[in-house]
Amino acid sequence: MVAFERVAQPGVAPENYHATSIYPEYFHIRKGEWRLLKESRMDCVVALRQDGSLEVKEFRHLQVDDRVACGRGENGEDGIFVHTEAFDFLEDISHKFVFRSLITRETSFSIDYDELYDLLGFERKNGFIVWVLGPAVVFDRDARNAFVQLIESGYVHALLAGNALAVHDVEAALFSTGLGQEIYSKKSVELGHYNHLDAINKIRTLGSIQKAIDQGLIKDGVMWAVMKRGISNVLAGSIRDDGPLPEVIADVYEAQDEMRTLTRSATTVIALATQLHAIATGNMLPAYKVVEVDQVRPVYFYTVDMSEFAINKLANRGSLTARSILTNVQDFVVTVERGLRKRFG
Amino acid sequence: MVAFERVAQPGVAPENYHATSIYPEYFHIRKGEWRLLKESRMDCVVALRQDGSLEVKEFRHLQVDDRVACGRGENGEDGIFVHTEAFDFLEDISHKFVFRSLITRETSFSIDYDELYDLLGFERKNGFIVWVLGPAVVFDRDARNAFVQLIESGYVHALLAGNALAVHDVEAALFSTGLGQEIYSKKSVELGHYNHLDAINKIRTLGSIQKAIDQGLIKDGVMWAVMKRGISNVLAGSIRDDGPLPEVIADVYEAQDEMRTLTRSATTVIALATQLHAIATGNMLPAYKVVEVDQVRPVYFYTVDMSEFAINKLANRGSLTARSILTNVQDFVVTVERGLRKRFG
Amino acid sequence: MVAFERVAQPGVAPENYHATSIYPEYFHIRKGEWRLLKESRMDCVVALRQDGSLEVKEFRHLQVDDRVACGRGENGEDGIFVHTEAFDFLEDISHKFVFRSLITRETSFSIDYDELYDLLGFERKNGFIVWVLGPAVVFDRDARNAFVQLIESGYVHALLAGNALAVHDVEAALFSTGLGQEIYSKKSVELGHYNHLDAINKIRTLGSIQKAIDQGLIKDGVMWAVMKRGISNVLAGSIRDDGPLPEVIADVYEAQDEMRTLTRSATTVIALATQLHAIATGNMLPAYKVVEVDQVRPVYFYTVDMSEFAINKLANRGSLTARSILTNVQDFVVTVERGLRKRFG
Amino acid sequence: MVAFERVAQPGVAPENYHATSIYPEYFHIRKGEWRLLKESRMDCVVALRQDGSLEVKEFRHLQVDDRVACGRGENGEDGIFVHTEAFDFLEDISHKFVFRSLITRETSFSIDYDELYDLLGFERKNGFIVWVLGPAVVFDRDARNAFVQLIESGYVHALLAGNALAVHDVEAALFSTGLGQEIYSKKSVELGHYNHLDAINKIRTLGSIQKAIDQGLIKDGVMWAVMKRGISNVLAGSIRDDGPLPEVIADVYEAQDEMRTLTRSATTVIALATQLHAIATGNMLPAYKVVEVDQVRPVYFYTVDMSEFAINKLANRGSLTARSILTNVQDFVVTVERGLRKRFG
Repeated sequence: MVAFERVAQPGVAPENYHATSIYPEYFHIRKGEWRLLKESRMDCVVALRQDGSLEVKEFRHLQVDDRVACGRGENGEDGIFVHTEAFDFLEDISHKFVFRSLITRETSFSIDYDELYDLLGFERKNGFIVWVLGPAVVFDRDARNAFVQLIESGYVHALLAGNALAVHDVEAALFSTGLGQEIYSKKSVELGHYNHLDAINKIRTLGSIQKAIDQGLIKDGVMWAVMKRGISNVLAGSIRDDGPLPEVIADVYEAQDEMRTLTRSATTVIALATQLHAIATGNMLPAYKVVEVDQVRPVYFYTVDMSEFAINKLANRGSLTARSILTNVQDFVVTVERGLRKRFG
Repeated sequence: MVAFERVAQPGVAPENYHATSIYPEYFHIRKGEWRLLKESRMDCVVALRQDGSLEVKEFRHLQVDDRVACGRGENGEDGIFVHTEAFDFLEDISHKFVFRSLITRETSFSIDYDELYDLLGFERKNGFIVWVLGPAVVFDRDARNAFVQLIESGYVHALLAGNALAVHDVEAALFSTGLGQEIYSKKSVELGHYNHLDAINKIRTLGSIQKAIDQGLIKDGVMWAVMKRGISNVLAGSIRDDGPLPEVIADVYEAQDEMRTLTRSATTVIALATQLHAIATGNMLPAYKVVEVDQVRPVYFYTVDMSEFAINKLANRGSLTARSILTNVQDFVVTVERGLRKRFG
Repeated sequence: MVAFERVAQPGVAPENYHATSIYPEYFHIRKGEWRLLKESRMDCVVALRQDGSLEVKEFRHLQVDDRVACGRGENGEDGIFVHTEAFDFLEDISHKFVFRSLITRETSFSIDYDELYDLLGFERKNGFIVWVLGPAVVFDRDARNAFVQLIESGYVHALLAGNALAVHDVEAALFSTGLGQEIYSKKSVELGHYNHLDAINKIRTLGSIQKAIDQGLIKDGVMWAVMKRGISNVLAGSIRDDGPLPEVIADVYEAQDEMRTLTRSATTVIALATQLHAIATGNMLPAYKVVEVDQVRPVYFYTVDMSEFAINKLANRGSLTARSILTNVQDFVVTVERGLRKRFG
Repeated sequence: MVAFERVAQPGVAPENYHATSIYPEYFHIRKGEWRLLKESRMDCVVALRQDGSLEVKEFRHLQVDDRVACGRGENGEDGIFVHTEAFDFLEDISHKFVFRSLITRETSFSIDYDELYDLLGFERKNGFIVWVLGPAVVFDRDARNAFVQLIESGYVHALLAGNALAVHDVEAALFSTGLGQEIYSKKSVELGHYNHLDAINKIRTLGSIQKAIDQGLIKDGVMWAVMKRGISNVLAGSIRDDGPLPEVIADVYEAQDEMRTLTRSATTVIALATQLHAIATGNMLPAYKVVEVDQVRPVYFYTVDMSEFAINKLANRGSLTARSILTNVQDFVVTVERGLRKRFG
């Protein structure tokens, strides 16, 4: 049976704590009962609530007297079973030798698009699709429009991004530029290096992006579409930010908690061209979700990026089940929107 | 007036030879006559033919007694004028400061696609479109099909590639795999590492790709479409090759000459995911073409690649007028085919 | 003369505010007096203090009734002169054509190393050298040791980094691993994926890295060397963080302010393998520093990274004067330490 | 026992031919005798000589009546045993989960340098070290000098490269530039874009690099050091070439054969910053070498490159045993030369 030790100091786990993985985990709570962990997340600890249920907690949220599961055996010897083979995302390679076992830009991605269409068609009604966006998506007119269309068509249930995504999206709404460059013609406009600052200053004057939308100042774009439809979103701050915009969360751990509130519901996550946010989200995403009493389904995690390094880095940090498409996110968004429209209208 | 010196040794230019650039160049042949160079190519020399016309020649093709233009001034002082400002591909940036002057994966590419559609729509009838292909295009089912469709629709007037492109295209035609991996499902087939060797061996048995098509063995793919329509193509050998296929030219300088025969006619060149062939083609491509008597039009050169390094390297080697799109060529080909079909049917 | 407008709303600049650049800027304060801006930073505003001096402020620090310089002309027409040509970091290229104008991995970097040695030899005594570190430096034994040696030799006056750098440095100090992999042998140790969590948990138990050093628990590494010598440092939080360690600043704008306190003194900044922190620092770094009354010197900014994209992105965001070396930071640190030791002991 | 089938057509293997791998392979020649294949190479066939010995042949070298080993079973069922586990280059990973299983720029490389020093110290006397060089090495003064020093110190037994390496090395010897840019100061010299053409033209005038050295025209650099010491080398042509220099082999399959003559002797191969030549060499390199009668040793293959893509591509093409260091080759060469000098003088 799994041993629970008491927390003696806030935010500090007892020695020999068990840390969660991305896999389904079962805890031997009492004789004959192995309980499946819900709403897990990598690198957290497991606390036993008063009512006997299990709670996955970040170390920093531990409180004195919380009872934390201990033991590092993963095969049941400490009362904890980590089910690494719950899903077979990866083909079993039984041959002695194959070429092309690593994903690169030369990997064939046709099937990934098709499977993604099927998945999103299903998830639109039955799942919870979280998008994680880097600013590249709004630097291009067609990609920005296509992403808005995805929102309008119901394929976006939550948005995770940073200040930059919102700033350049608002800059595009107000001035049709991204960092002073027109998002279609690429022409640098006169004094264009003021545009993102003017955009931020304007929103700060009004008090929020929402107010700029309410007042009809912002009439298009990702933030407009998201807010108009009341779609949950988190804008997390970073040290790179100008501004920030009022909606941005300055405290990164508070931002993490907010992000986690959303990823907890996620059934599919798609991260586009943002190493920072993709890894952050990958860290907090389990490979599975308990949808009904003890019924388990996989959580899909796609990352789209231009570089093998970004993909490998994610894999090296434990997000083993991520599926990756190596391409420019502009093309990705435009292609996916068109593909979904063709199939599902 | 420009001085011409005699060649004393085969394949060797006289001292102080003038080397050609990618720009339009005018030669002061006789009093009052500045003659425009036709069918130029970077890093060649200019020989005066018996009939008084000018010929652009690679050093290695120089013969004893050829008369070679000498002088390195480019502003007419030596009888040679290099017209670097003939075309304004690049925006004039007159502001003190602009962001985003370098092309990266975050550059907006919507306009490039649109301009490319317009261009190809025009060139299909009025120009000569040369494609330079790396093997990535045929490793993916949808990209391969889309490229075939481009050929069928008349957007491909010549093809430059290497042994690998043809081998993996033929492998796909015979076995539906690329290096043993299915080009749609990505499954590694049993003994799949034999497939490209079997493909080569089969073609070598028959004597040529053409014969395999004639016999109905090859019924789809890039080489099939190209050969069926009699489209000019050059398959250049490289030290990386298996085989090679019978059509491949083993001598790289002979291959260069063949490639040049085609690029001489080119009005638009599009190079996809091949640093070797893209640089080779860039080297032999002038920025302009003389279409009628002393009438000049620009030659468009697009490169599509995943890495800023490939793009920068091309620019650093003198292909200054190349326009670049940073993306996965699979997406590029699929998107361009769809875009052209939508516009021009 | 420059016009100053009053702030009406906290954190919001008046319309037509002037935003600072990285260049030296002169403000026409009163007849005959053009005052040079001190301690500038890109994308801030300029406030006139009660005592008549000028203060560079982030928008978010503006308070009601602050008087903000307005006008966007940069040539004196609005009383503001932006001296873009104060320093000639870049060679003047007067030829009609040159190869290799862009920096890539094939650029020659010998001279950059030599100039950096000279610079650091000078700055060690006469300047203020700020290092910006990504975690890659501490994932490798030799690089980590070499950086410690740089600290010991007096070449590090301040350190900017994130939670990850400190976590993996402490993990290395306690377990000789980075994310569970030995930092020399690369062997994955048993249960090594617990090591960074154990490291964090241990430091949180003690209350700070400093206490772990005081108690003799941490006896080597970057944080050890920095803290032992009382070197200023900022550990900024990000949403990617585990933990965090107690010293990490959770609020990114507070972190920005702390970073700026240090960069304000900087005469040379060297950013290693961290796009996030490099761009953040680049944003807050002027191209110059006023060292004595109206005497100006350049501020040197080096970035070391593996990818052209990272370098170009920095340039595209305005850090035009950054010098870049494209290489692995492990080799960079080892080489620089050896080079400095050879020259200066 | 293995079946041998007769070749009916030159350059074409019989159906069901056995293709070689990089691993040691044993052929059941007669009862009780399993013969180890010597001087193997990936993707070739095995012919039985008149004298009963086995010969590894490229398909294109097959002659009518050659007897070729057939059968694709690799576990002895067809009389052929492929010994994939002869060497354990790769650590056995027995844990349930580890971070960092893929090689990236953040991998620790200290141990690779140390092991390489040990290896080269041994191989200098007891092995045959083949270097494969891209032009980047000679674009930088210090890297070029360091490589010359490696040659002088006996660490280079053969050199494989292309026309570009030799051209820019000779350009550096004659003009101190690389593509017109000084290889130390990076200054673009007047009319520098003529330098590589002048270098080629000069060598073509003389007839060979060797003659330029004999006449005292070339007094430093990689080609100078290699030729002075009579070190075997192959300069293979490519379609990208200017010139070419007289020593360059125009026919790529002839070049392949020449390269193979050298790799046949190789015990260690180090490929620097050249995807084309690295893959070409990887294709022809077995994982082992038979040093004495049936005594087998591993062949070491290092690739040094800046991008994960290059590394992954090599692995995807079957060079599984390659060890990779991700860094700038300039730093690599300088560091290795210094490391070796320190250890072995």
